[in-house]
Amino acid sequence: MERAGRMGVAVRGIERADAGAVQRLAPFGVATIHEAQGRTGLLKPAVRPAWPGAAVCGTAVTALLQPGDNWMLHVVAEMIRPGDVVVAACTADNEDGMFGELLATSYRARGGAGLVIDAGVRDVRALAAMRFPVWSRAVHARGTVKATLGSVNVPVVCGGMLVVPGDAIVADDDGVVVVPRERVADVAAAAEARERKEAATRERLARGELGLDVYGMREALAKAGLRYEDGVKN
Amino acid sequence: MERAGRMGVAVRGIERADAGAVQRLAPFGVATIHEAQGRTGLLKPAVRPAWPGAAVCGTAVTALLQPGDNWMLHVVAEMIRPGDVVVAACTADNEDGMFGELLATSYRARGGAGLVIDAGVRDVRALAAMRFPVWSRAVHARGTVKATLGSVNVPVVCGGMLVVPGDAIVADDDGVVVVPRERVADVAAAAEARERKEAATRERLARGELGLDVYGMREALAKAGLRYEDGVKN
Amino acid sequence: MERAGRMGVAVRGIERADAGAVQRLAPFGVATIHEAQGRTGLLKPAVRPAWPGAAVCGTAVTALLQPGDNWMLHVVAEMIRPGDVVVAACTADNEDGMFGELLATSYRARGGAGLVIDAGVRDVRALAAMRFPVWSRAVHARGTVKATLGSVNVPVVCGGMLVVPGDAIVADDDGVVVVPRERVADVAAAAEARERKEAATRERLARGELGLDVYGMREALAKAGLRYEDGVKN
Amino acid sequence: MERAGRMGVAVRGIERADAGAVQRLAPFGVATIHEAQGRTGLLKPAVRPAWPGAAVCGTAVTALLQPGDNWMLHVVAEMIRPGDVVVAACTADNEDGMFGELLATSYRARGGAGLVIDAGVRDVRALAAMRFPVWSRAVHARGTVKATLGSVNVPVVCGGMLVVPGDAIVADDDGVVVVPRERVADVAAAAEARERKEAATRERLARGELGLDVYGMREALAKAGLRYEDGVKN
Amino acid sequence: MERAGRMGVAVRGIERADAGAVQRLAPFGVATIHEAQGRTGLLKPAVRPAWPGAAVCGTAVTALLQPGDNWMLHVVAEMIRPGDVVVAACTADNEDGMFGELLATSYRARGGAGLVIDAGVRDVRALAAMRFPVWSRAVHARGTVKATLGSVNVPVVCGGMLVVPGDAIVADDDGVVVVPRERVADVAAAAEARERKEAATRERLARGELGLDVYGMREALAKAGLRYEDGVKN
Amino acid sequence: MERAGRMGVAVRGIERADAGAVQRLAPFGVATIHEAQGRTGLLKPAVRPAWPGAAVCGTAVTALLQPGDNWMLHVVAEMIRPGDVVVAACTADNEDGMFGELLATSYRARGGAGLVIDAGVRDVRALAAMRFPVWSRAVHARGTVKATLGSVNVPVVCGGMLVVPGDAIVADDDGVVVVPRERVADVAAAAEARERKEAATRERLARGELGLDVYGMREALAKAGLRYEDGVKN
Repeated sequence: MERAGRMGVAVRGIERADAGAVQRLAPFGVATIHEAQGRTGLLKPAVRPAWPGAAVCGTAVTALLQPGDNWMLHVVAEMIRPGDVVVAACTADNEDGMFGELLATSYRARGGAGLVIDAGVRDVRALAAMRFPVWSRAVHARGTVKATLGSVNVPVVCGGMLVVPGDAIVADDDGVVVVPRERVADVAAAAEARERKEAATRERLARGELGLDVYGMREALAKAGLRYEDGVKN
Repeated sequence: MERAGRMGVAVRGIERADAGAVQRLAPFGVATIHEAQGRTGLLKPAVRPAWPGAAVCGTAVTALLQPGDNWMLHVVAEMIRPGDVVVAACTADNEDGMFGELLATSYRARGGAGLVIDAGVRDVRALAAMRFPVWSRAVHARGTVKATLGSVNVPVVCGGMLVVPGDAIVADDDGVVVVPRERVADVAAAAEARERKEAATRERLARGELGLDVYGMREALAKAGLRYEDGVKN
Repeated sequence: MERAGRMGVAVRGIERADAGAVQRLAPFGVATIHEAQGRTGLLKPAVRPAWPGAAVCGTAVTALLQPGDNWMLHVVAEMIRPGDVVVAACTADNEDGMFGELLATSYRARGGAGLVIDAGVRDVRALAAMRFPVWSRAVHARGTVKATLGSVNVPVVCGGMLVVPGDAIVADDDGVVVVPRERVADVAAAAEARERKEAATRERLARGELGLDVYGMREALAKAGLRYEDGVKN
Repeated sequence: MERAGRMGVAVRGIERADAGAVQRLAPFGVATIHEAQGRTGLLKPAVRPAWPGAAVCGTAVTALLQPGDNWMLHVVAEMIRPGDVVVAACTADNEDGMFGELLATSYRARGGAGLVIDAGVRDVRALAAMRFPVWSRAVHARGTVKATLGSVNVPVVCGGMLVVPGDAIVADDDGVVVVPRERVADVAAAAEARERKEAATRERLARGELGLDVYGMREALAKAGLRYEDGVKN
Repeated sequence: MERAGRMGVAVRGIERADAGAVQRLAPFGVATIHEAQGRTGLLKPAVRPAWPGAAVCGTAVTALLQPGDNWMLHVVAEMIRPGDVVVAACTADNEDGMFGELLATSYRARGGAGLVIDAGVRDVRALAAMRFPVWSRAVHARGTVKATLGSVNVPVVCGGMLVVPGDAIVADDDGVVVVPRERVADVAAAAEARERKEAATRERLARGELGLDVYGMREALAKAGLRYEDGVKN
Repeated sequence: MERAGRMGVAVRGIERADAGAVQRLAPFGVATIHEAQGRTGLLKPAVRPAWPGAAVCGTAVTALLQPGDNWMLHVVAEMIRPGDVVVAACTADNEDGMFGELLATSYRARGGAGLVIDAGVRDVRALAAMRFPVWSRAVHARGTVKATLGSVNVPVVCGGMLVVPGDAIVADDDGVVVVPRERVADVAAAAEARERKEAATRERLARGELGLDVYGMREALAKAGLRYEDGVKN
């Protein structure tokens, strides 16, 4: 694996996670996948869906942008294959509207499934109307120039998390999680197992059983020294 | 009243505000109740509804959590009585997703009416589908461990405001307000009076009368020295 | 043009942008108008719509408020003419709920078309139900006093941008843009031209053409030194 | 104990923590006292010293302020006794410069030992020259009006922590900690014990022993599942 | 006065505030000048000195920068006359290190007295060693490109405040204040008067008199409804 | 290179950058090294020195921490070799005081040269007195538990930047930069070259030459369309 953040290059062929395995992640929410891979892989909570209900599951192609400049979002368009999610990082904190309706039109025409960007986006009403799923740090109408090189399809740090081209990306209302391409099948299996277990737990909780009993926490709480006190009688 | 923030205890019986009085608060918005109790009791604006339209009115049971750890949210579940709202504070700023669909299922089964938490939550789409009302500082899929004690049903500072177990909690799109349990009936009466007065004011304003006249502000403005200037004629 | 931020005055007659020209801006989104006037005029992205789908196009009347005090929002009500948008700045950062349902009722009765405020608002559910469009920095139920003078219809800095009374204001889900009153017709013309051009571009992009070709970027990228690399074959 | 946040009152006589016990806290840093009282009592890290090296240990007299208004800082001056630290909270987030050289001169003349304020201060160079210790959320030259009532010597929430008049306050470069007045002697004793133990630990660590061994962590790490791996030989 | 934010121009001759009048402001702190001109003119508190003790008083030459791009800081260097302070705004929030030791060397050689920038700076240790006074929003080593035009010597909004080329700028540990060029002599006179008055007040407060009496606040407090309560006797 | 963020492992032997090459970086500031390696490698500006004048140059050993838990800072102590800088990331945003005087004593005894942590630290006055260099996101007295595993000596994302164990770390008042271990000699050479060139530039600028001429910018500015305008004659 190469280093993150190499500048001035655009990599044409990347090794993508197995498409079948990626699709096994699709039924699960971000929270489930995060747990299933050992509580790792989440982007910071500042990266939020641009419209409510947005959800995506695909493979990452990446762009590294300069502040105020979205040039590389055009370069990456050529690298998109059907099912890809563009993951864009920025070399400095920046909330400019790097992406809008025209780029969404282009990405969709190339088979792009969505965008995750550690910067701002615009035209959010149009994006919602197109149902093109987008996660961003901000919504801002401010457009950008095309003057300074970044990179395409190099590893990037987006929302505080390393994303390697070809990794699986799952995103929904709870945020964005990345699954390393070599772990996708394992994580999918773990998510399936977790979901089965949670279904049983959910049923017990819905009947009024307490998590204290379902998860068997009482002994550990006592050992940790929790003191129950009786307050008022009522 | 005991001190806020005592650690390692779970109090079993608390004195709740009178249920009938609490229900008199239900018709009013948070803004009205805040005004009716003398412009006090609001949590900071960073504590926001997890889904649009969420609204709740109930009595507080409280949990004090450690960062990255939601153990006490299970302990408090046993203390919930129908109509209670869980109010959870954290000993340090933390945006982890402390609460999600499973705990919501459990709380609802116990009669819990909602959650206010000075931390993060997850599974927000499921929470919205269940119509389980939640207010939080963040939405984040990141789950938590169960390793370190906090407390349950002690006074806590949540969103910058002191909440004592048994206080009334009213929350809607405008935020969250706490009414001390001993003041609920008085505040309800004041809110009812305020609402009647506002209805008359609303009608006058809707007819085009100015607040300057409805509230009789012109003299105070003149006394404070406001100078009217004529700009362009138009 | 007078200086921004003069205190203790209320200007009665202002020179408004030509109403017909302002209406030519209405079909365009904020992003388009921002580009059409040379990428200037946007408020900071922290000023957000209070309810999704809010949109407005009108002329600015302004208020300069003190923190925790909304007195001048009543003084400005008298200055509103049909089609005006109230633009309110604050002399210090403040997230109090300066504006709510009653003032919205009053503004609408006077012909007010919307509000942009660099502070907080409340009653957001009622504002949405009334479809009264509002942009603000925060939503907070906390009300305000009426004790200290600011000004009305002086130039103000709102969301980091200078707004002069009579300027055109366009706002939507992407944020808020101000068009100086003397430039409205020119900007409208530029927006119309831009939109025509974008329609053609959109069509080409929707057919799968790349922005690299549509905008002719390949040569500039090569000149800037972008190196294409072949990764894995696939 | 009365409720936090009562408005419009100034309480003249308060029960202070025992002065002798408070002085036993003075040799210790904030971090030590925080640990000694069970890891509670700290204000949020946003409340910072106004000049490097500021340190104080005393008893709290409190003020609850309105945003943009420092009236109550004058009312509390009359309540100061030698050794008191003024603790000022604000009913809404506000960074105005509520306090400066003149008030510091007044407080010092009355025996005031310092100020902790959840808002802004100004004249910081003069404060440093006077060596009057101050902790605040911001430094801002913006002054305030004197128009709206708050309260004096009621319990307040400052920096997210409940402070009751008469509590002990210790503050240094690491922040601010409050010790409930009824616990001061116990916390002082615990801090003294902790310091003795830390001295021994410090010596062992300074000789190159590892915390893993000094604190006996190896077994717990193994039990928690830590896997040691050998990387490269070197 | 022209509009703020015009792009792509560099204005060569500007009308500066009278140098003698500007120097009358030099003895006063930012807080005093802010009060003396009616509590207006302050930049937001996020604009902070890059090294403690920095202080400056001079006339503004301005630059409007693009994010990640400091080109205009070189263009403005040619406009500097002895005693000028460069005031730099940015078209979007950006914390890049736009300015460092080399530019400081250049500005000083041209007679530049300091810099106020709504972005980041670097080489802060060297700036302190040179005693070149700088105020900025951030310290960051990240450098910038020189690719996109802004403007020089147009009115700009910096730290939320309008600054017109030729205005007086005074800055110290408390922040930055701008005095419109046409008001400098009046504000200097008001500051001198204020200082005389404050000296007498300071003396009374230092003797232990209360602000309540010095400023005659007791009647207004009573009228506003402040209730004194006797707590414990002590 | 392995993936960032693997959990529950402690790697014992790591490949460090060549010590001689690392020492060639020591004379240069962070800004120079950042430029010398193509404007990459900087941590975000929120990671700041804990005391003014702190500076370090060494090789990274890494720790990945859980929020509110500094257990791994003890595990990493055993891995420190003389000249190492501990670089600590956290799985979630957290400002707790993870590190203080005792750990600094231990690290120094093991030859540790400094700490960079994407969380909080405490005992900052003691750290300054020891002259143990530390960079952190916050200063907070709040201590932490030792209950949940992270990792040691795996790649981590700290301050938004990927750090691989064995990389070179240079930090000063301007922030923190990481140099990949395989590039250290090249970057040192580039920094040396840059410094020589800057010395000549500095001299020319100090004589009053303009950057416009030293860097030959006039033509590019003209080509980009900069319009010089003559304002007032003076």
